[in-house]
Amino acid sequence: MKPPIGRETTLCMSLSGHPGHFGSRFHNRLYELMKLDYVYKAFTTTDLPAAIGGIRALGIRGCAVSMPFKEAVIPLLDGLEASAAAIDSVNTVVNEAGRLTGHNTDYVAIRLVLRNHGIDPRTPFLLRGSGGMAKAVVAALRDAGFTQGRVIARNEGAGRALAERYGYGWHPEIGEAPAPLLINVTPLGMEGPEAETLAFPLSLIAACDIAFDVVALPSMTPFLLAAERSGKRCITGHEVVVLQALEQFVLYTGMIPSEDQVADAAAFART
Amino acid sequence: MKPPIGRETTLCMSLSGHPGHFGSRFHNRLYELMKLDYVYKAFTTTDLPAAIGGIRALGIRGCAVSMPFKEAVIPLLDGLEASAAAIDSVNTVVNEAGRLTGHNTDYVAIRLVLRNHGIDPRTPFLLRGSGGMAKAVVAALRDAGFTQGRVIARNEGAGRALAERYGYGWHPEIGEAPAPLLINVTPLGMEGPEAETLAFPLSLIAACDIAFDVVALPSMTPFLLAAERSGKRCITGHEVVVLQALEQFVLYTGMIPSEDQVADAAAFART
Repeated sequence: MKPPIGRETTLCMSLSGHPGHFGSRFHNRLYELMKLDYVYKAFTTTDLPAAIGGIRALGIRGCAVSMPFKEAVIPLLDGLEASAAAIDSVNTVVNEAGRLTGHNTDYVAIRLVLRNHGIDPRTPFLLRGSGGMAKAVVAALRDAGFTQGRVIARNEGAGRALAERYGYGWHPEIGEAPAPLLINVTPLGMEGPEAETLAFPLSLIAACDIAFDVVALPSMTPFLLAAERSGKRCITGHEVVVLQALEQFVLYTGMIPSEDQVADAAAFART
Repeated sequence: MKPPIGRETTLCMSLSGHPGHFGSRFHNRLYELMKLDYVYKAFTTTDLPAAIGGIRALGIRGCAVSMPFKEAVIPLLDGLEASAAAIDSVNTVVNEAGRLTGHNTDYVAIRLVLRNHGIDPRTPFLLRGSGGMAKAVVAALRDAGFTQGRVIARNEGAGRALAERYGYGWHPEIGEAPAPLLINVTPLGMEGPEAETLAFPLSLIAACDIAFDVVALPSMTPFLLAAERSGKRCITGHEVVVLQALEQFVLYTGMIPSEDQVADAAAFART
């Protein structure tokens, strides 16, 4: 059995505008399966500097950082790991004896997903989005060797800057030109007001080979359901959140769970 | 079963120079017995202002405050409840939507112990100590109507101020004059370097009626063991810590556990 929570227990946490339950369930389940004296708790805050100061002062071991804090957290940290520095976006803070370092495990997870699915980097992609997660995905594509891509974002400032930084084209609208790899990094299709919205038109879905949606809730968005119906290869946001959370788990605990343990925790966290 | 820890779970905590395990075990056990979605974790810190700022920013519901923070915490709070204000010592912080109020549940616990044991307030007492806990005990004695007492403390500044504030006499040494109620509020007899030390000489123990030791670890100190051997009535520090922790529990959760649940948690926390 996992040890009872006591003075030696290590706390890990998350900070998010609207905490979900995936992180708490995934991490706490792995702690239980691996009998680690850790506990994980999701928080929100209206005072990010004081929250980060509290992490340092209380010796909280690690903190997942979600919207809207991924960029605002950077000046509050003591350093950035290379991938987080490269994309100016932090989704994970690791506390080493009071020194806080920002990481980006979304970036790491996207690299792993691209590799695990064996996607040829010569494949041209069409990507929608220009927020913090889009930065991680575009940087991972570039670093994985993808050379041909278009970034679609209505926000010209963010979209153009993101595309040009990594050597891709920017377009305000999707247009009609197809691409073999379609990637959605917007909230379109996510639980909430845009749950019914298709991230790409059916004509482009019909013309693609691979449909990749970073939205994790639900795992099968309207975009992926349409792609699946057309017999396309689908990559879900659930794969991404599991891999990024696993990377956080390794950073916080120094332990590597077995594949079975990860599968158990991922299934538990989905329920 | 207690709900799994998730985004809705309420965190309570403690801040102490040297965290013990009583609080974690007592509170977490009651949460489990009462199926409350709470978790309790002990912390230490080297940056009290940032730790308190973190409590506010993260919405941590309550915090037990121990040595050496009981007085230093006061200027960091938004207000003091009456008993904490009266004795300038806080052992509990309650967070109501970002407003932090300091309480002193040691004071409340001492009042309850004196009442539960039906000690006549006309009983003269001899009390050793002048620290934060001694302030709570002396204030509780005065407020319970005890009029005749001597405070023994080698530290003249703290000892004299404490005694005179509540209308008692101060003496630097114990002397030979007996008293029917002996109260130890020093670390004498506590686990550690002074574990073997008798808080009062045997002659005074032999001459008393009631021996009250605020030291909780161990519950039976050399002072109480000697008093028990002489057939005296003994009151242990364990009673005090259970009552003060119970008072914290009620402040944090708004729930009142049954006597059986308290007894279970107290026994569990002692192991």
